[in-house]
Amino acid sequence: MTTQELVEQIRKKQSFLCIGLDVDLKKIPTYLLSEEDPIFSFNKAIIDATHQFCVAYKPNTAFYEACGLKGWEALQKTIDYLHDNYPEIYTIADAKRGDIGNTSKMYAKTFLKDMGFDSVTVAPYMGKDSVEPFLEFEDKHTILLALTSNEGAFDFQTLKSDETEIYKKVLETSKSWENSENLMYVVGATKAEYLAEVRKIVPESFLLVPGVGAQGGKLEDVCKYGMTKDVGLLVNSSRKIIYASTNNNFAEVAAAKAEILQQQMAEELEKFKFEHSNEL
Amino acid sequence: MTTQELVEQIRKKQSFLCIGLDVDLKKIPTYLLSEEDPIFSFNKAIIDATHQFCVAYKPNTAFYEACGLKGWEALQKTIDYLHDNYPEIYTIADAKRGDIGNTSKMYAKTFLKDMGFDSVTVAPYMGKDSVEPFLEFEDKHTILLALTSNEGAFDFQTLKSDETEIYKKVLETSKSWENSENLMYVVGATKAEYLAEVRKIVPESFLLVPGVGAQGGKLEDVCKYGMTKDVGLLVNSSRKIIYASTNNNFAEVAAAKAEILQQQMAEELEKFKFEHSNEL
Repeated sequence: MTTQELVEQIRKKQSFLCIGLDVDLKKIPTYLLSEEDPIFSFNKAIIDATHQFCVAYKPNTAFYEACGLKGWEALQKTIDYLHDNYPEIYTIADAKRGDIGNTSKMYAKTFLKDMGFDSVTVAPYMGKDSVEPFLEFEDKHTILLALTSNEGAFDFQTLKSDETEIYKKVLETSKSWENSENLMYVVGATKAEYLAEVRKIVPESFLLVPGVGAQGGKLEDVCKYGMTKDVGLLVNSSRKIIYASTNNNFAEVAAAKAEILQQQMAEELEKFKFEHSNEL
Repeated sequence: MTTQELVEQIRKKQSFLCIGLDVDLKKIPTYLLSEEDPIFSFNKAIIDATHQFCVAYKPNTAFYEACGLKGWEALQKTIDYLHDNYPEIYTIADAKRGDIGNTSKMYAKTFLKDMGFDSVTVAPYMGKDSVEPFLEFEDKHTILLALTSNEGAFDFQTLKSDETEIYKKVLETSKSWENSENLMYVVGATKAEYLAEVRKIVPESFLLVPGVGAQGGKLEDVCKYGMTKDVGLLVNSSRKIIYASTNNNFAEVAAAKAEILQQQMAEELEKFKFEHSNEL
């Protein structure tokens, strides 16, 4: 999917919600465990109920790897199901991969070509040649970790080098990489005020923003500091939506939670339009 | 496996060689492709032929993921084969994972418990809470990326913060994490002179050193700057051994290449013993 197509979907649905499909067999309704493929059954129900309120789904590969072969099979089935039934949905493999060049090439092919994801998250620590192999794929995105939503983000990402935090060096440096137009960035909602700093370096890039909801970030702040004229935001929520209920009506409750977020997003889009009516 | 058991194996075999099982279907002898599980057949042949010359095997997960379900199946079979036939061998999942706490927990369980690896490589960018879940497993190791062997290592790892390079901050900070005695570090052989710097911060820790051979690092330099009284080194070679030949006798040729490295390692161990005879 191109960035432009993603923007069109956001406009159409009045939503920039990404739902994290972090399926943990210990947390899904127990009746699903007797099904042939409980993970896929859970995902299918969540997707069918919530797709009109979101523009993207983001399975975190850790949760699928944890289930071994069955996990990987369920992940592929989930992506295929999305492609077959909701081709307008953007897909993110939250894999946080990254390795030396020839190895990153394998990861890139796996997620962006073979499995058919629209994008994959990548860790920046190993630098340029560990990321560029992901950027080669046309109409696919590489979502680079910049400033993450967890506490440990302050261990190394915010250390200063020549007065500049490492996460800013990551943002700045990555702009010089080949096919850098295919980059998006992870910036945690728990650090919304940092988004203004991020926007000084990457004014137009899409940001994948985790940490709204369960981790305490506020949607309003994210939009205040991060929204651009082409929206430029994908805000993720996982646990707060998919585990909102563990009863048989979990999908319905998840849809209700997703709709609340979609409504708030529609308001933010309207607010932005109003505030920037002179410029747009 | 405990660190002490690993040291004993190194002493016994006079080798600190780790062989990287980075199996690429495009590079293995074509006759194997007609077998039921070409990846496992290749690994089995390499392991049977080389195990007496090395103490560890390191499959890079990228190569297995690239083959989908069959790849993961072959990886598990490889680890099971090692446990059943050569339980004295140390195993490393070169996965370079790392995520927020509850997600890292899933990765840690997958590799260190379910799959049964002795260790897993982890990226440090997300800090303390992304690494500590890996450190909780008794008699297992977490091998943290410090200074990698690729060109991109100089993009962020060697940036200075308060006069100190980021990779040194990673080394220093990680020592304060819970169960840090279970840490090892990746330090590339292509930067052997940096090993002296690394040793000032982690004088005793085991270092996994990639980049000898195909990437140009020299064993002698690695030993000069990195060896400790308990050896403290696992030197990895992948392509130079496993793809030394693509003929039917590939395993035999791989064994010959591994033996050459083992012999050089035995010499280095002897040299160290001689030079440090007063201290030991």
